[in-house]
Amino acid sequence: MNEALIKIGQRAQTAADQVALLDTTTKNQALVAMADALEAHQKDIVNANKADLANAVDMPKKFTDRLMVDQQRITDMANGLRAIANLADPTARIDRGWINADRLQILQRRVPLGVIGIIFEARPNVTVDATGLTFKSGNAVILRGGKEAIRTNTTLADVLRSALEEQGLPADAVQLIRDTSHELAQEMMNLTDYIDVLIPRGGQGLIQRVVKTATVPVIETGAGNCHVYIDKDADLKMATDITVNAKVQRPSVCNAAEKLLIHQDVAAKYLRIIAQALIDHGVQLRGDDRTRAIVPQIQAATTEDWDTEYNDLIMAVKVVDSLDDAIHHINHHSTHHSEVIITDNIERGRAFQQRINSACVYVNASTRFTDGGVFGFGAEIGISTQKLHARGPMGLDQLTTIKYEITGNGQVRH
Amino acid sequence: MNEALIKIGQRAQTAADQVALLDTTTKNQALVAMADALEAHQKDIVNANKADLANAVDMPKKFTDRLMVDQQRITDMANGLRAIANLADPTARIDRGWINADRLQILQRRVPLGVIGIIFEARPNVTVDATGLTFKSGNAVILRGGKEAIRTNTTLADVLRSALEEQGLPADAVQLIRDTSHELAQEMMNLTDYIDVLIPRGGQGLIQRVVKTATVPVIETGAGNCHVYIDKDADLKMATDITVNAKVQRPSVCNAAEKLLIHQDVAAKYLRIIAQALIDHGVQLRGDDRTRAIVPQIQAATTEDWDTEYNDLIMAVKVVDSLDDAIHHINHHSTHHSEVIITDNIERGRAFQQRINSACVYVNASTRFTDGGVFGFGAEIGISTQKLHARGPMGLDQLTTIKYEITGNGQVRH
Repeated sequence: MNEALIKIGQRAQTAADQVALLDTTTKNQALVAMADALEAHQKDIVNANKADLANAVDMPKKFTDRLMVDQQRITDMANGLRAIANLADPTARIDRGWINADRLQILQRRVPLGVIGIIFEARPNVTVDATGLTFKSGNAVILRGGKEAIRTNTTLADVLRSALEEQGLPADAVQLIRDTSHELAQEMMNLTDYIDVLIPRGGQGLIQRVVKTATVPVIETGAGNCHVYIDKDADLKMATDITVNAKVQRPSVCNAAEKLLIHQDVAAKYLRIIAQALIDHGVQLRGDDRTRAIVPQIQAATTEDWDTEYNDLIMAVKVVDSLDDAIHHINHHSTHHSEVIITDNIERGRAFQQRINSACVYVNASTRFTDGGVFGFGAEIGISTQKLHARGPMGLDQLTTIKYEITGNGQVRH
Repeated sequence: MNEALIKIGQRAQTAADQVALLDTTTKNQALVAMADALEAHQKDIVNANKADLANAVDMPKKFTDRLMVDQQRITDMANGLRAIANLADPTARIDRGWINADRLQILQRRVPLGVIGIIFEARPNVTVDATGLTFKSGNAVILRGGKEAIRTNTTLADVLRSALEEQGLPADAVQLIRDTSHELAQEMMNLTDYIDVLIPRGGQGLIQRVVKTATVPVIETGAGNCHVYIDKDADLKMATDITVNAKVQRPSVCNAAEKLLIHQDVAAKYLRIIAQALIDHGVQLRGDDRTRAIVPQIQAATTEDWDTEYNDLIMAVKVVDSLDDAIHHINHHSTHHSEVIITDNIERGRAFQQRINSACVYVNASTRFTDGGVFGFGAEIGISTQKLHARGPMGLDQLTTIKYEITGNGQVRH
């Protein structure tokens, strides 16, 4: 095991013990101080980012767009920290408490997880967002970002750490790993003695690698093969509007729809109109045989299409026999993120919500609403598609656990 | 991958989808029917158990005690199922609901996890207890017990499955794997497509093997290197009573104390009395140098002692310099199950509860109270020593997850 990494782990644990005991006001002041420091060091950050961008000239524009940090983005990151300062502190909460039959007072308190590891790619804003959320919830964070953003991330982390130090707080609550090798990321995934949970943030390749190889517990986020199902009694205009919005409003994100299922009774009438609306918005459609019998100009979907998350202006379309058929298809092919039924029938809407096995199940609204901010959580560190610990948008609460504090006056068990 | 095991997984998933939709009354009636069936088939169960016991003549008495099933134990198992029928159904609950800024109705519902795998040793009661808890919480269960109990477990599972069938419910909600080979257990630990969570129940050897090798998510339970810390202002009688109770009342279980730490200011006076009380109860003590200077007749503790869970009438004793020293020792050596401080000082009690990083942290009460029944959860499937998903005693709630059901009237995201 890498000695330097173990030292980072030990420092994180020491810092986590200290941060866990800070009161909410102290944490909020520190978050505002970190925000101010980012704005004060704007020039350093932009200069470091320019060096990263200069090294990334051969990368696609999509990539450099994410990597780029300018004055506006620094303001956005700083305001993000200020917004987190305004959120309720989950660790100030006692979820419930009771006196048991032995007259013991049992309090179920919310407490930080401890040390959180974040493995991410070339989005420098993750350095700041993850720091804000993990710090506010009383944790220490170990960040390991992509090598293409190393100068920007290092500068950001240094600014955040200095701001903590100036507040008399442990800088090691935020540590960035400067070794961006694959080997070190792998060792971090096995640092079970020091990291309580790993949250990978980035593309599916990264997330699946972490899920498959980490021995540290992982929370899987952001896999979104989301479905729109148009039932036989759906309103055509609503069905069109929601399908188009779910597909095109921001196709690169995990809550965008990738598949359209439609009931056979309305397919002939609805599909032409909805397919045209999608095509007008630049969507490339792929259909099963029954879809292509109605809209012949689109290409045939392959077996792989049903399991693919495009994150792009592509949508596969399938005609289904029944609500049962739709539910079965979705439960079999979905990544269990977000799905929607468009229906005017209350019982069919309820059946869909009850039987679909996904984190967020909608009736008559776009899947694009699956988001911690939209849900009212204030901020999110990702959208969990697993069932254990956290499911759906993860806010501050999901970065905590519980502890029982039991107080007696000499009770023994008989 | 083993074909038979995949079939078991598929059947479990189908059953889980059905059980998830059952109403509470139907589930409760089925639990009572299962209890009645156990009592009606008492003779078959005892006969199967006699065959298992006949094969286990060379095993230690502790082992055959656990394996043995008689009329009384069948009544206890049946009453356990009836008690579970009387508990609240977590999946009948909507944890919270709200209308967000987009006028979407968001309900956070409690829903079953799906398929739960239980790997256990030679305690046949686990077959019945685990069935009751997983079924009531709307899940299907796959059970894999030790080979020494295979006849008893098979008979129990057959009785439970028949009772479900007679109620018109899916028997595959309860499946027992009849192949007790090591290889099959290993394949079960990697059945990620069909099992949502694995809960090993048994000794530390079993649990650690599952934790280290399973790719299915595991909930780790029952590791208990628990500490009693006697502070400088502790009441001597209370300190003695709690220490003796925590150590000797049932030394084989995970919430029994294994270590005694005592503040240096009271060690000279208290240790002789407390050590004698423990010795009078048949406890073998092992001490650090300062302890042995006070109680010279006890043997020296080794470095390994501080990390060992004895589950026996053995206790290691250490004199500490301060509350800080005690907290540091415990956080470093504990399995994070249950710890207690004995103190009359409210601030020192609070500091201990806040800074100790364990599931259950006591002031002035025996660690033996860490138990789902004692806490008021009605029943428990184990005591989790991990931080993710479940921590402390796990009742029905911890066998569930959440799902967001979102209802709109055509909302799209802008």
